[in-house]
Amino acid sequence: MRIANLHERLVLLHGGRAHDVAEVSGGRFGPAVQDVYERWDEFRAWASGTSLHGGAEIDPAALGAPTPAPRQLFGIGLNYRDHAAEAGFETPAGLPPVFTKFATAITGPNTRVALPHGDATGRVEVDWEVELAVVIGRVARRVPPQDAWAHVAGLTVAQDLSERVLQMAGPAPQFSLGKSHPGFLPLGPWLVTTDELPDPDALRLSCAVNGQVVQDGTTADLIVDVPHLIAGLSAVLPLLPGDLILTGTPAGVGMGRTPRRFLAEGDRLVSRIEHLGQMVQTFE
Amino acid sequence: MRIANLHERLVLLHGGRAHDVAEVSGGRFGPAVQDVYERWDEFRAWASGTSLHGGAEIDPAALGAPTPAPRQLFGIGLNYRDHAAEAGFETPAGLPPVFTKFATAITGPNTRVALPHGDATGRVEVDWEVELAVVIGRVARRVPPQDAWAHVAGLTVAQDLSERVLQMAGPAPQFSLGKSHPGFLPLGPWLVTTDELPDPDALRLSCAVNGQVVQDGTTADLIVDVPHLIAGLSAVLPLLPGDLILTGTPAGVGMGRTPRRFLAEGDRLVSRIEHLGQMVQTFE
Repeated sequence: MRIANLHERLVLLHGGRAHDVAEVSGGRFGPAVQDVYERWDEFRAWASGTSLHGGAEIDPAALGAPTPAPRQLFGIGLNYRDHAAEAGFETPAGLPPVFTKFATAITGPNTRVALPHGDATGRVEVDWEVELAVVIGRVARRVPPQDAWAHVAGLTVAQDLSERVLQMAGPAPQFSLGKSHPGFLPLGPWLVTTDELPDPDALRLSCAVNGQVVQDGTTADLIVDVPHLIAGLSAVLPLLPGDLILTGTPAGVGMGRTPRRFLAEGDRLVSRIEHLGQMVQTFE
Repeated sequence: MRIANLHERLVLLHGGRAHDVAEVSGGRFGPAVQDVYERWDEFRAWASGTSLHGGAEIDPAALGAPTPAPRQLFGIGLNYRDHAAEAGFETPAGLPPVFTKFATAITGPNTRVALPHGDATGRVEVDWEVELAVVIGRVARRVPPQDAWAHVAGLTVAQDLSERVLQMAGPAPQFSLGKSHPGFLPLGPWLVTTDELPDPDALRLSCAVNGQVVQDGTTADLIVDVPHLIAGLSAVLPLLPGDLILTGTPAGVGMGRTPRRFLAEGDRLVSRIEHLGQMVQTFE
């Protein structure tokens, strides 16, 4: 199953067309995308028993984030060995560093992103990080790894845009703030349930700047995989329906390249995960 | 004006009694506490023109957090010189480190808090941090310091409970996760608007463990004060109505003492800010 946020309404995708959930369900489920995760099991059962006809065209520019207002948003740092090395950090032994991206950073999959003005010196270094994003579908508390996937609603593509000057400023890394400028968290293009995937633990993910591939990895290389992230986070606190986990990025970010390379006006960034889809950001 | 979350309903406090806003306003404002910040200016105008009679008793055990579900929760680290020194960090030059506490940590002002089980070694070091908490009342984006207070709904007391073993683990400080166990963010006892205060930039704050005062400071000693925090954060992203800023803690935390001292079963923690009120946590 694939669901999306189209014109800020919840839609089911089928046969390349969008089916408005509130209309098709006769109001049993509302149009608010975020609310569907509260009744995820019920929604899945309903959707699998519903036949869909007609539907509307999917306008890529009208797609929003499949989880537009998660109550908790977990960013995972340094979760691929090659990226931890290029970022100049040791590979963490236990749970990798957990930060947040503040919710106002969330945007849809096909957007224009304003480059921030930078610090007092005017320096601004906006970098890319393609990531697998996990959306929670059931309250998860102290979940063992073998039960973790049953608590996942589905997967989507995330681009964890990061302004490195602010991120690396100060005595403790300013991870959360440097990654939270408006528009710095594109999500989409839709949410895909894991039964659509040959192996949810091994997805190839890549991103390209102006056609040049800069990141190309696989989630099979995650140091802490999705089941163990859910186990580790849910050992500390409850994960709520609609919560988002950004699982980390593989090597190839701009600050790890020689010479370093950051996003500039007019750049076109394509972020892609196999079986999930792709997103396109342009910078201005 | 003082508002509170009583039995999960929005109330106005007046003459030591609680007045249910949904009832008194005839439904103009709903009972959901979080929603009031979306219409804060309208609510303030209505409340100031309304005369209150009768009302209910305030049961301290039935008080919840005055902002139970903020969309964005900004924790500010190392914002008092004496605390930065005791924590072993340099005093930051620009904006102090910004982390989050995940929303499931939020609880009311008078609670029992379960001590977590700790890491694989069983070590657990739960520490106290009394803090002034700021609740946003108007969207704030690129607000200069001199306009910042006009974007604040009010102030309340926060206790930024912190489990130091997890917080200090790994290659980057695990600030957000180590401070987010369930119940680790008591807020209250109510929200106080700044017109009730002689000087909102100089409030004495303290906390005591089993009657022994362990922290005693004043927000006049903040390195980055409330107006400059709002200016600094809103330069990066929009602050939304209901968002919460935890402004940092003064010296006297358990990990900075000789010998170090952490919370144990049966301990009673009282957190107090003058003119705002006090909260009581017991640990189990």
